[in-house]
Amino acid sequence: MGRFIVIGERIHCISPAIRAAMEARDPEPILRRAREQLDAGAVYLDVNIGPAAKNGEDLMKWAVRLIQENCDNVPLCLDTANAAAIEAGISVYDRSRGKPIVNSANAGDRKSNVDLAARNDAIAIALCSKDGVPANNDERQEYCQELLEHGLALGMEAEDLWFDPLCLVIKGMQEKQLEMLEFIRQLNDMGLSSVCGISNISNGMPKAVRPIIDSTELAMAIECGLKAAILNPCERRMMETVKAADIILNNTLYADSFLDI
Amino acid sequence: MGRFIVIGERIHCISPAIRAAMEARDPEPILRRAREQLDAGAVYLDVNIGPAAKNGEDLMKWAVRLIQENCDNVPLCLDTANAAAIEAGISVYDRSRGKPIVNSANAGDRKSNVDLAARNDAIAIALCSKDGVPANNDERQEYCQELLEHGLALGMEAEDLWFDPLCLVIKGMQEKQLEMLEFIRQLNDMGLSSVCGISNISNGMPKAVRPIIDSTELAMAIECGLKAAILNPCERRMMETVKAADIILNNTLYADSFLDI
Repeated sequence: MGRFIVIGERIHCISPAIRAAMEARDPEPILRRAREQLDAGAVYLDVNIGPAAKNGEDLMKWAVRLIQENCDNVPLCLDTANAAAIEAGISVYDRSRGKPIVNSANAGDRKSNVDLAARNDAIAIALCSKDGVPANNDERQEYCQELLEHGLALGMEAEDLWFDPLCLVIKGMQEKQLEMLEFIRQLNDMGLSSVCGISNISNGMPKAVRPIIDSTELAMAIECGLKAAILNPCERRMMETVKAADIILNNTLYADSFLDI
Repeated sequence: MGRFIVIGERIHCISPAIRAAMEARDPEPILRRAREQLDAGAVYLDVNIGPAAKNGEDLMKWAVRLIQENCDNVPLCLDTANAAAIEAGISVYDRSRGKPIVNSANAGDRKSNVDLAARNDAIAIALCSKDGVPANNDERQEYCQELLEHGLALGMEAEDLWFDPLCLVIKGMQEKQLEMLEFIRQLNDMGLSSVCGISNISNGMPKAVRPIIDSTELAMAIECGLKAAILNPCERRMMETVKAADIILNNTLYADSFLDI
């Protein structure tokens, strides 16, 4: 098994500083967050430009070029509801360090993002949902199969579909966590890749508690076979957990200094 | 599933302060460590008096009475190579809050500790090993079956045998961790209970690294179905992980203050 793949989540227009930088095409705030995340151990960087209904194509092209040219062609995960903007971003994307990731497709109104990934030789994050929260693992499995068959029919390799089981919030859906972990294991047993946004589970919890809950569930999910996660790599406890898990699963050779590598 | 069971490991004669207190029959150092561990969230306390070839029976009786009388009859795990001392301890043990645990039996020269547990209606920690480190999970499974059949033949309930897969040290046996985790899952799938001494895995690592490695493997092991662990509950990160895992697995109801409960 390869090392766990961290997709840094901090270039996101929900942050006022990033939103302002995107609007003003101001490189520095974006590059600072890119470098911080790479220094912390991120492999991919997510670039979330929001709905970006207006000028989304220009913005995504600008962001992709900016980050890749200044950060050694770091591979990126292009994240917006605007499919044309994703495709525009891919048109200027440098693949030397990895395919672009399309974030995201689902079995509902975003199913066409699988087509987008297929025609651009990209990876697709495929949410195992249709128009809301999946009720149980049977539903997750149904959407997973639907998306897998769709992608394969379009000529994609199965390994380019990264299935997201949908992490549900503990405050309100506490009894759903174990099932989600089981689904990651099912995907792994089927030889499929999985990815998720771990921090969803701790939404609404006190700030000090969140990394404790998130890192514990992350370790559990990695044991179940999770391949990648979208998370904040600048949260020390999360990267400590990723690095420790890679040691335990023998993905990286142990050294006393492993946390600093 | 019930809450995860932490067995506090800090009343151990390897500590000079505890060794001296045991020799002098000095209550305070022992009771201090008992209370610290209970305050931190331990359910059981391990009482390790070492080989205790001389006066082991007296010492264990004294320790059991001392700790139970002063700590609301906390359930104990009696830990020594001296079987007579364990039996002496059980003779004065108060069961009102749980059966005593015999630590430990194996499939080799300590197999008779299963007999000891059976005739005293105690729980036995059953190491899945014979005369050294098990080579693989087939060997673990063989010893597990041998100990299970032996215990059942003596009239024990399966739930009173807690199987220890043997945690191996990462520095030297890094490639063995995943297999150990798989074995915990096998035990869980078979409806059997598992327990282990997590901190063995980080032996020889820098002090700052150990809780990071230990807590990550603990979360993974709990996901695999681990029922109990012998650990230091005063290590903050370990208990944070146990409490977070109990929330994620829905063993305790979430509250914002769950870490303080």
